[in-house]
Amino acid sequence: MTRLELFEQIRKKKSFLCVGLDSDINKIPKHLLNFEDPVFEFNKQIIDATLPYTISYKPNVAFYECRGAAGWISLQRTIEYLNEVAPEVFTIADAKRGDIGNTSKMYAQAFFDNMHFDAITVAPYMGVDSVSPFLEYKKNWVVLLALTSNEGANDFQTARRDLGEAMQRFGIHSTLFKLLYERVLLKSQEWATEEQMMYVIGATKGEYFEKVRAHAPNHFFLVPGVGAQGGSLEEVAKYGMNDQCGLIVNSSRGIIFASSGTDFAEQAANNARELQIEMEVLLRQKGLI
Amino acid sequence: MTRLELFEQIRKKKSFLCVGLDSDINKIPKHLLNFEDPVFEFNKQIIDATLPYTISYKPNVAFYECRGAAGWISLQRTIEYLNEVAPEVFTIADAKRGDIGNTSKMYAQAFFDNMHFDAITVAPYMGVDSVSPFLEYKKNWVVLLALTSNEGANDFQTARRDLGEAMQRFGIHSTLFKLLYERVLLKSQEWATEEQMMYVIGATKGEYFEKVRAHAPNHFFLVPGVGAQGGSLEEVAKYGMNDQCGLIVNSSRGIIFASSGTDFAEQAANNARELQIEMEVLLRQKGLI
Repeated sequence: MTRLELFEQIRKKKSFLCVGLDSDINKIPKHLLNFEDPVFEFNKQIIDATLPYTISYKPNVAFYECRGAAGWISLQRTIEYLNEVAPEVFTIADAKRGDIGNTSKMYAQAFFDNMHFDAITVAPYMGVDSVSPFLEYKKNWVVLLALTSNEGANDFQTARRDLGEAMQRFGIHSTLFKLLYERVLLKSQEWATEEQMMYVIGATKGEYFEKVRAHAPNHFFLVPGVGAQGGSLEEVAKYGMNDQCGLIVNSSRGIIFASSGTDFAEQAANNARELQIEMEVLLRQKGLI
Repeated sequence: MTRLELFEQIRKKKSFLCVGLDSDINKIPKHLLNFEDPVFEFNKQIIDATLPYTISYKPNVAFYECRGAAGWISLQRTIEYLNEVAPEVFTIADAKRGDIGNTSKMYAQAFFDNMHFDAITVAPYMGVDSVSPFLEYKKNWVVLLALTSNEGANDFQTARRDLGEAMQRFGIHSTLFKLLYERVLLKSQEWATEEQMMYVIGATKGEYFEKVRAHAPNHFFLVPGVGAQGGSLEEVAKYGMNDQCGLIVNSSRGIIFASSGTDFAEQAANNARELQIEMEVLLRQKGLI
């Protein structure tokens, strides 16, 4: 899928919502446990109910991997179902992989050749050769971790402590230095353009969005952290939206676990629709629809 | 397994070798393809043949994941076999995982609860809450990526480019600053001690070993990059060995793919023994055996 096709879909559905399929078998409604593959059944019903309001689905692989081979079968069935009933949606394997070249190549095979995801999330720590094997798939996307939504993001991504001694000694202001997440944004643009790379930018980091956008004006950002983690959709749109929207905002628990009863899919659809309506307003304000 | 138990095993076997089970189904000897689970059969024979010379095994998960559910079954069988025939060896899931807290918890479940690995490799980019769920398993280990063996390590881990502008303006020498891999070494010691954390330090970075050891004098290092990637065992031992050895040196392709014929296990054993003999000399020189 091209960047333009993604934007077209956003305009058509008046939504830039991604539904996170963090389908923990211990949290899905109990009545589904009678099915042969409860997690797939859960995903299927969630997909059927939320499809009108979303442009993307993002299973987090950990929730499948923790069930071993059975989990992989649920994941495989889910992506097959998505590619069958909604080939137009943007599918992201939230795997946060990254290893030396010959190993990343195997991960690329797993998620692109075998499972036909459109995109995979990748960790940047190991640098260019850990990312480039994914970029060899020219129709697929890398969603690189840049500024994550969790507390630990402050340990390295936004940390200034490496500057301590020199700053004290010379009285230098820290804005002269690039923080790690900024270096990731800038360096990685040497590896691929905005036609093949996106960035994970956490919604809980609202104050950073303006700076992030300045470093990557045309890229799409995958934005977790709205909802359960406390980020504000309005703030994200205010500072993060560009002329092609440039945002895919993810909600996982807030949608898929909206109810633990037999009405779980209906409630998921309600919550997805609520977000879609908010998004429609924001897209209209920006003049994109 | 405790640090002391690991050291005792190193002394007993006169080896600090880890065999990397990067068991690519396309590279294993053709005659094994007749088995119901060729990769497991390959691993089993490699394990049986190399066990006298090694203290650790490290399957890289990518090589299993790329085969979907079938690959997970091979991985599961391999760790079960290891825990059955050699409960004393140190088993590492080379998975390089790391995600927000509730997700890392699922990965910990996958590799510690379900598969009973002793250790898992973890990427540090997302900080403390991406690592701490693994540390809640008090008998298990986190092997944190610090300084990797690949070329891309220079992009962020050892990069000085964020310092450029300020250094030029003020003429500051770069040694005043901590590089990212150093910050990872130092910061992560606030999360766990050397009894539960190790670091990945690439052998191809020989010149860094002295500095790394200064930052983490007592920790074990998992050292990839000897062999196929070009690192020198002697240099690693010279700068990296401490009073409890403190080194687990991995070799993957150089051992497991030593031959593609029916003698593959025998040749793997030969190559493992060669490394073990070198290691014995180095341990003796250090007065540890």
